[in-house]
Amino acid sequence: MPNYQAPLRDMRFVYQELLTGNEVSDLPGFEEVDEELIDAILEEAGKFCANVLQPTARAGDEEGCHFENGEVQVPADFHAIYQIFTEAGWHAMAMSPKYGGQGLPKSLHMMVDEMISSCNISFGLLPALSNGAYNAMAAYASDELKDIYFPPIAEGRWSGTMCLTESHCGTDLGLLRTRAEPQKDNSYLITGSKIFITWGEHKLTENIIHLVLARTPDAPPGIKGISLFVVPKYVVNSDGSLGEKNGVSCGSIEHKMGIHGSPTCVINLDAAKGYLVGDVNKGMRAMFVMMNTERLMVGFQGLGLAEIAYQGAVKYARERLQGRAPTGPKQPEKEADSLLVHADVRRMLLTMRAYTEGMRALGIWIGIQVDIASHHTDEQRRTEADELVALMTPVIKALFTDLGSECTNLGVQVFGGHGYISEHGMEQLVRDVRITQLYEGTNGIHAMDLVGRKLSLLGRFTRPVNAFIAAHKDEDELTEFIEPLQSALNRLQSASDWLQQAATEDPHHPGAVACDYLRLLGLTTMAFQWACAAQLALPKVAAEDGAFYRAKVHTARFFMQRLLPQTAALELSIKAGADSVMAFDDDAF
Amino acid sequence: MPNYQAPLRDMRFVYQELLTGNEVSDLPGFEEVDEELIDAILEEAGKFCANVLQPTARAGDEEGCHFENGEVQVPADFHAIYQIFTEAGWHAMAMSPKYGGQGLPKSLHMMVDEMISSCNISFGLLPALSNGAYNAMAAYASDELKDIYFPPIAEGRWSGTMCLTESHCGTDLGLLRTRAEPQKDNSYLITGSKIFITWGEHKLTENIIHLVLARTPDAPPGIKGISLFVVPKYVVNSDGSLGEKNGVSCGSIEHKMGIHGSPTCVINLDAAKGYLVGDVNKGMRAMFVMMNTERLMVGFQGLGLAEIAYQGAVKYARERLQGRAPTGPKQPEKEADSLLVHADVRRMLLTMRAYTEGMRALGIWIGIQVDIASHHTDEQRRTEADELVALMTPVIKALFTDLGSECTNLGVQVFGGHGYISEHGMEQLVRDVRITQLYEGTNGIHAMDLVGRKLSLLGRFTRPVNAFIAAHKDEDELTEFIEPLQSALNRLQSASDWLQQAATEDPHHPGAVACDYLRLLGLTTMAFQWACAAQLALPKVAAEDGAFYRAKVHTARFFMQRLLPQTAALELSIKAGADSVMAFDDDAF
Repeated sequence: MPNYQAPLRDMRFVYQELLTGNEVSDLPGFEEVDEELIDAILEEAGKFCANVLQPTARAGDEEGCHFENGEVQVPADFHAIYQIFTEAGWHAMAMSPKYGGQGLPKSLHMMVDEMISSCNISFGLLPALSNGAYNAMAAYASDELKDIYFPPIAEGRWSGTMCLTESHCGTDLGLLRTRAEPQKDNSYLITGSKIFITWGEHKLTENIIHLVLARTPDAPPGIKGISLFVVPKYVVNSDGSLGEKNGVSCGSIEHKMGIHGSPTCVINLDAAKGYLVGDVNKGMRAMFVMMNTERLMVGFQGLGLAEIAYQGAVKYARERLQGRAPTGPKQPEKEADSLLVHADVRRMLLTMRAYTEGMRALGIWIGIQVDIASHHTDEQRRTEADELVALMTPVIKALFTDLGSECTNLGVQVFGGHGYISEHGMEQLVRDVRITQLYEGTNGIHAMDLVGRKLSLLGRFTRPVNAFIAAHKDEDELTEFIEPLQSALNRLQSASDWLQQAATEDPHHPGAVACDYLRLLGLTTMAFQWACAAQLALPKVAAEDGAFYRAKVHTARFFMQRLLPQTAALELSIKAGADSVMAFDDDAF
Repeated sequence: MPNYQAPLRDMRFVYQELLTGNEVSDLPGFEEVDEELIDAILEEAGKFCANVLQPTARAGDEEGCHFENGEVQVPADFHAIYQIFTEAGWHAMAMSPKYGGQGLPKSLHMMVDEMISSCNISFGLLPALSNGAYNAMAAYASDELKDIYFPPIAEGRWSGTMCLTESHCGTDLGLLRTRAEPQKDNSYLITGSKIFITWGEHKLTENIIHLVLARTPDAPPGIKGISLFVVPKYVVNSDGSLGEKNGVSCGSIEHKMGIHGSPTCVINLDAAKGYLVGDVNKGMRAMFVMMNTERLMVGFQGLGLAEIAYQGAVKYARERLQGRAPTGPKQPEKEADSLLVHADVRRMLLTMRAYTEGMRALGIWIGIQVDIASHHTDEQRRTEADELVALMTPVIKALFTDLGSECTNLGVQVFGGHGYISEHGMEQLVRDVRITQLYEGTNGIHAMDLVGRKLSLLGRFTRPVNAFIAAHKDEDELTEFIEPLQSALNRLQSASDWLQQAATEDPHHPGAVACDYLRLLGLTTMAFQWACAAQLALPKVAAEDGAFYRAKVHTARFFMQRLLPQTAALELSIKAGADSVMAFDDDAF
């Protein structure tokens, strides 16, 4: 594994230069979040992740988790780092100060999430799930529940989980069977079995707070009969102290492709005491609050793993001597040149770089919209921001994790055969990132969400792009960026128009082209970020720290010339629609 | 893991219908290889792979290989299946009857290689390497060496390896340091350390024959000073009996992402007795014979893993009930419809199917050219076939393994979260196939080989395509296949012209676009196979067993409409060339 160096310079560029006027520090509650504070937090987080989290990632993969006699053992080091992590308060960055959190912007939290994911995604899932549980309860739980549960979560003494999936239903939660029987004391007794529960059982915290989807006895069938409950591992007394063990147990843990340091549990509920969160039969609404936060976070996991893969590949390419430049030896004093002389290796590195920095710019842009949507004083601005977040959430979840997979695989490829060997740590990144394309809804489901529910919001994206193009189209030095952006935008618009019409003719069209459409939108969005970055960087390439800006311009150029052409293929593929997909006989598969 | 069913129908279609007039049974030595014999062999191989090999694949992954006290333990079951495998003679299908082999066509052997790779790639590497060693010796070793070594190899009592890589050199073999000191008895004493030696040490065979690249004392530096030696684990007496242990030992084995059942060894040579194969300093020539065979075989591994992933995904999609068709319930009696109703799932399955069948058609076409190149009586035909093989070897190695990776990942995606869990066997396919993009030369190296040395042979491919188009362009029902094929061919031709010109202007252009170019050629080649398949299948769709042909036509249509558009993007990306790749400052990575 390469030694992680947090991409502070790029984060600052995005947060403070590219998205300048981002309004975050103007939002009520974030007045103190100035440049100095942001720098201090990011720098500290970077050090923490590199020095504390990263050294345990490989060992966590090798040691893995073990299940015996109903108990789960996680990698031994994780106990100590969880203490340090929660003492420093990294898990509670965006939780409310009312309950002991730091009340920082979500956008800043996401940047730290990227770093955590680069350094130890298995460990990072524990605080990530606690945050998800916190967010769902923050939106819908009663004040009474919050007053009891939030302080220990904000302290890190309790952790959280999401209990949705059952063995026969993942995507289609309407099929779930877990039952909740109302009791006279306002509680429910919950019985059922949940699978794929990340960090569902462990001993790092005193209590584990499960957010469980279940049906009450008279609930209507399907998705409209699902309610959300909070079910603690240990029953919580009214004074917040821990009572007896609840009817919650871990049945087994999964053997998985990766994230070996994170226990994936079967959680059995046997008349477990739980409390309703939100209204009866409105569980999905509350769960979506939790899922939307998690979805953005999962996207940042893809980004984080792409970043560390890039760092590893660059280090190896610099050090590994193999072959000679086609123009003659570059390092004649050595027995071979470094891999960096080879255009194909550079192509791989630049692909990783262009995707990674493009994701970061796009991700933080949307992170800031999350803060605006929740904190702005103007309702119109909140709505606009919220709609942009809704449009881009599937893109960030699915595109970032797809690109995370592509980039970690490129990282392995740069290493050649050595990439396949565990000791270098590169193959672990491929295995770890693979889950991000599957959990929190498969990427296909997010693509369906985009084409099925979000297309009407497309203007929230195209409007600022058109404004940018209109403002800069006469600047000659920007033509090489504006033109491909305009082409991609035209393709996106044309594909969107086709799809909106086609969906009325055959309801299979949206599903058949959803993944291609999501990628088309995602690449176009990244093209916008790269055009903005180039516009900002160009005047600074001659300055003292011009190297950073020169690299920006070069990478933007590479993105436009070598990666964005994919949009041409996507437009064609989308417009071919569902016909060839649906004509195939079921029996012939 | 799904229960494997050898794709016999499709193999027969390709071998006996699509490539009819393939001339294999007209070639001297293959007179007895008629339809009946081919059917019998493929059927038997399919049963053997499904019943004997596949059941050990998962256990082989879990059990893995272990190294202790210089000895290597492979999965226990592999001992028994190796006995059955070699008694049936599957390893010696294409070896010469003179030494105990069956003398069957290489093309037939490759089809069996696909099946073996579907069912247990880790195990399959052992006979694959024996075949590679056999081929290199067949081309360059003295009759004396062949008479001693070949009979036990053909019996399966001895196995073979390729010892090329050293820790500081993989791609750049010119750097290798292993030394060979000539002795008075015509032997050499060989000293050095080799890494990544597949099946380098084990106890399944009585002896292991290492083919080792090394330098003689006065060898010129670099690639021109490399000789090839055969170095047995146990010294072989002149009567073929085994003598003392040679100076060959296993230093350790690697922990890897996948192919856990196949030991990857460090092989230390300490004054090990060896014998020259071919001429001094001409080792690379002999090694290329071995490598070219292995490269095609590695391509077929990618194909085999794509096939089993497809089978697994189809079975799961059929059985898993989740959600409803957008046009209303298809299985109203059940609580949900099968995954097959979802267009996005069908898109994934059809992508896997179109790639897999396309690879098979292309792979067998080239396999037959291998037989023609070695057995045809007409020199001109031999040369033509040989040139087509040379052109397509990098495509088969690199494209098939890239698509193997894409297809196994799609297989996991169809399973959703369950795909990530080891018990289903789908994630193992992703881990196993990943090595095929790296070993036998990384895919980037093969792309460089294509653009650097093979472009002049492009006519060997474009001529039959143009002939096909000319013959069928007026058949209306073929327009939907001919037109996209023609478009792709135009893009290929245009990109080739650009590249040939560009290479004279900047030697970095070929490397910068090599991978894109290889994919463009590969997809165009598959488009040719699909157009031919559609042309053949269309008149038969109404016949009694028309279902097979209908599926062919539907899949061809899907390939043309949804996958081939990639060529549009590739042409654009290629023509952008190396500028953006090379402009980036080395220090800025």
